[in-house]
Amino acid sequence: METNLYAQLADSLSQQIREGLFRTGDKMPSVRHLARREAVSISTVTTAYSLLEQWGWVEARPKSGYFVARRQDDRLAMPRQVKMKPRPRAATTSELVMEVQRDSANQKGVSMSAAIPALDFPILGNVQRAFTRLSRTRKYLGVGYDAPEGLPEFRQQIARRAVDAGVHVSPDEIISTAGCQNAMALGLRVLTQPGDIIALESPCYYGLIQMAEAFGLKVIEIPAHHDTGISVEALKLALEKWPIKALVSVATFSNPLGSIIPDERKQELMELLEKYDVPMIEDDIYGELYFGDRRPKSVKAFDRDGRVLLCSSVSKTIDPQLRVGWIMPGRYLEKVTHQKFIQQVSGSTLPQMVTAEIMAQGAYDRHLRQARETYRMRSQQLVDLVSQHFPENTRLSRPKGGLVAWVELPDRVNTTELYHRGRSQNLTIAPGEIFSASGQYKCCFRINFAQGWSPERVAAVQTFGEWIRESL
Amino acid sequence: METNLYAQLADSLSQQIREGLFRTGDKMPSVRHLARREAVSISTVTTAYSLLEQWGWVEARPKSGYFVARRQDDRLAMPRQVKMKPRPRAATTSELVMEVQRDSANQKGVSMSAAIPALDFPILGNVQRAFTRLSRTRKYLGVGYDAPEGLPEFRQQIARRAVDAGVHVSPDEIISTAGCQNAMALGLRVLTQPGDIIALESPCYYGLIQMAEAFGLKVIEIPAHHDTGISVEALKLALEKWPIKALVSVATFSNPLGSIIPDERKQELMELLEKYDVPMIEDDIYGELYFGDRRPKSVKAFDRDGRVLLCSSVSKTIDPQLRVGWIMPGRYLEKVTHQKFIQQVSGSTLPQMVTAEIMAQGAYDRHLRQARETYRMRSQQLVDLVSQHFPENTRLSRPKGGLVAWVELPDRVNTTELYHRGRSQNLTIAPGEIFSASGQYKCCFRINFAQGWSPERVAAVQTFGEWIRESL
Repeated sequence: METNLYAQLADSLSQQIREGLFRTGDKMPSVRHLARREAVSISTVTTAYSLLEQWGWVEARPKSGYFVARRQDDRLAMPRQVKMKPRPRAATTSELVMEVQRDSANQKGVSMSAAIPALDFPILGNVQRAFTRLSRTRKYLGVGYDAPEGLPEFRQQIARRAVDAGVHVSPDEIISTAGCQNAMALGLRVLTQPGDIIALESPCYYGLIQMAEAFGLKVIEIPAHHDTGISVEALKLALEKWPIKALVSVATFSNPLGSIIPDERKQELMELLEKYDVPMIEDDIYGELYFGDRRPKSVKAFDRDGRVLLCSSVSKTIDPQLRVGWIMPGRYLEKVTHQKFIQQVSGSTLPQMVTAEIMAQGAYDRHLRQARETYRMRSQQLVDLVSQHFPENTRLSRPKGGLVAWVELPDRVNTTELYHRGRSQNLTIAPGEIFSASGQYKCCFRINFAQGWSPERVAAVQTFGEWIRESL
Repeated sequence: METNLYAQLADSLSQQIREGLFRTGDKMPSVRHLARREAVSISTVTTAYSLLEQWGWVEARPKSGYFVARRQDDRLAMPRQVKMKPRPRAATTSELVMEVQRDSANQKGVSMSAAIPALDFPILGNVQRAFTRLSRTRKYLGVGYDAPEGLPEFRQQIARRAVDAGVHVSPDEIISTAGCQNAMALGLRVLTQPGDIIALESPCYYGLIQMAEAFGLKVIEIPAHHDTGISVEALKLALEKWPIKALVSVATFSNPLGSIIPDERKQELMELLEKYDVPMIEDDIYGELYFGDRRPKSVKAFDRDGRVLLCSSVSKTIDPQLRVGWIMPGRYLEKVTHQKFIQQVSGSTLPQMVTAEIMAQGAYDRHLRQARETYRMRSQQLVDLVSQHFPENTRLSRPKGGLVAWVELPDRVNTTELYHRGRSQNLTIAPGEIFSASGQYKCCFRINFAQGWSPERVAAVQTFGEWIRESL
């Protein structure tokens, strides 16, 4: 499996147009010329050009070739911050969530609903080879039950990488988990009792609302801004008023908005949590997928007394199938270790060995550089596509990292209906209402931009655009 | 890694004595003769003979060779059933449990505390090769998040094998888990709320008491018989008196007693649960390790309305490192699926693929036949060793399957002290008190008989025997 050649070519041509190598009205290189230069087939080039046409970058003129099209600028507005009075409510979710989750396990059709990375990067070859090589060693077999903390080499790699996010912990302060969700469940279990109140950002990853529901918790939804994340002011008001037991937040490239709390606000947030003596579960699963120049700091970088439980995994950077995650539980180290033992005894060693080796090799860093650049480009292509095919008054978040963006449509559009209509044709988006515990976001949806914009995916965006226009 | 040659030889010679090929006073074959016949070295044979000597089967006569020793018959009494009035109490455990658990992850010294299988069977070679071969296919990578139920081929194998235990379920009624403990945690989470009362057998696997504690449950301990398991009569009295939300039991080869509820009592138990409308979590992790002629029936075989949640794994039959388990949640299928999603999203695919392949090959059945025979023999050797080296008034359970047995010493002996003394020399047993929520069993301990009785292990039994005599 490699990224499709035509998609690579289309990506690189669109980048050249964006950078001004070709301007509106310019003739693009001929199909024959490109095929020779790039050493690919004629049909690869024509497919690339028809992708560019669908994206709105070029137009075909009969018998003359392809020309740079007049483009609408990116005039899409940003999603609005929801106005609501934060108050505790029982976390409830509908069957819809499990339905959406099942879609993403379904391999048919075009799924834009799941927050999964592109899975055609060469790193998967490294992973496979590491599995094969390490499985031969047999070191992962015949040793009884592991200590619940997990594999030392793996925890060492995680500790080393954490420094880039401003987090200084020893390997002994890290516990391996079966993915990030598992890490968060362990943390939330340790911090809360049924009936307790927790604060979540809104919109919020639906899995957290489900978790709160399953744990019998009440949630207070704190509005989040499309760019700067959770409102520290609104959180302050909520902390003043309610006995909040924990804050749970994806501070860096939130899911679904793609927002990031700026460093100085992360500092403020920590001070607030200290003042009210509230711990925080930080989901940092997207932190490595930044489009800017450097790794943003984790909130935990500002943590002075171990109140932040940082959770993450390689599900978004390598492959969810590894089920390799970790938690840095700060002052709750012992309790989380105990909780992991109770739930699972210990973890799977081989995937931790593989992950540690991939990270130690440098293959992981090379991969991340490629992935960041690819996702950055694809997120721009999403802007192009939505500008091109959706009504003018569509709003779209512009993530500075991660895998997903948030689309806000005019109030009249019901994205749950849109979802069901898409689903009947195996085209899926994640409807907005599952990202709220209080029935918000019925005109919004989450979309994955990390997958390559293949003709099928572009056509799916077009189709949703048509349906949206119909419903207006 | 293979079972040590000398241990194999000692096993087979002791078996020949037991079967009457050699009788008390008979001269055993000479070292030289055996070395030639078995094509092993002289030192292998002398090591085997010194093992047999330690076990009490032979005695060395200077310049004459080895002779069958006069043996004490197996006159050890059985452990007594604890007398107590079952009543609900908060589940509490001590730090001691985590200490014992950590010992088993510690590879130093002689561990007789963990309930782990022998890990030198050839099946581990099959497992390793399956990992290597299947990791090459890459089918486990690049497919996003799995459905939470797990791999269909794996669940099909489990459904097929369940028939031998009298359980008829379709693969769709099985959910893969990260081991048996994980399966039980999912089930208990679905069945209970904090403050609820559950019934456990007593003595009881300490992990369950910990789980009850972590989930905020009250427990009623129901006395269990060394041979026939949980007292159905005592359970009936408890059900009459208390609003019990679930029964949790290792019905087949319980941990730590090794007891098994006879089929007709399993039927009675089910009728009782139906009458009081109580569900049961059945831990069937040892069910395949029977020493008799046929697979005992699971309690779930008698389940008519889906109230039994059967949990198991391959941790006791193959290797705990696989972290491959399953749950058949009966009428709670949907809730358990949801709970698994919330805790982990999905499971690790590759180990499920490996397990399914091993089971499909027939290698697993061949392995199980060998493992059962080996464990049966080693459990007899445990009887020999305890008869030989422990005080006469020691009581010992005689499991008909599984990996562990239960030793009851005179009341004056404190096995927690014994445990600490052993631990200081890297010799570990599992002290009795961790198997109770109410401070019982301070003069008992659990011992693993599944590991080969190497000279070091035999010496460890001798050492504990001396310490016990000292403390009397």
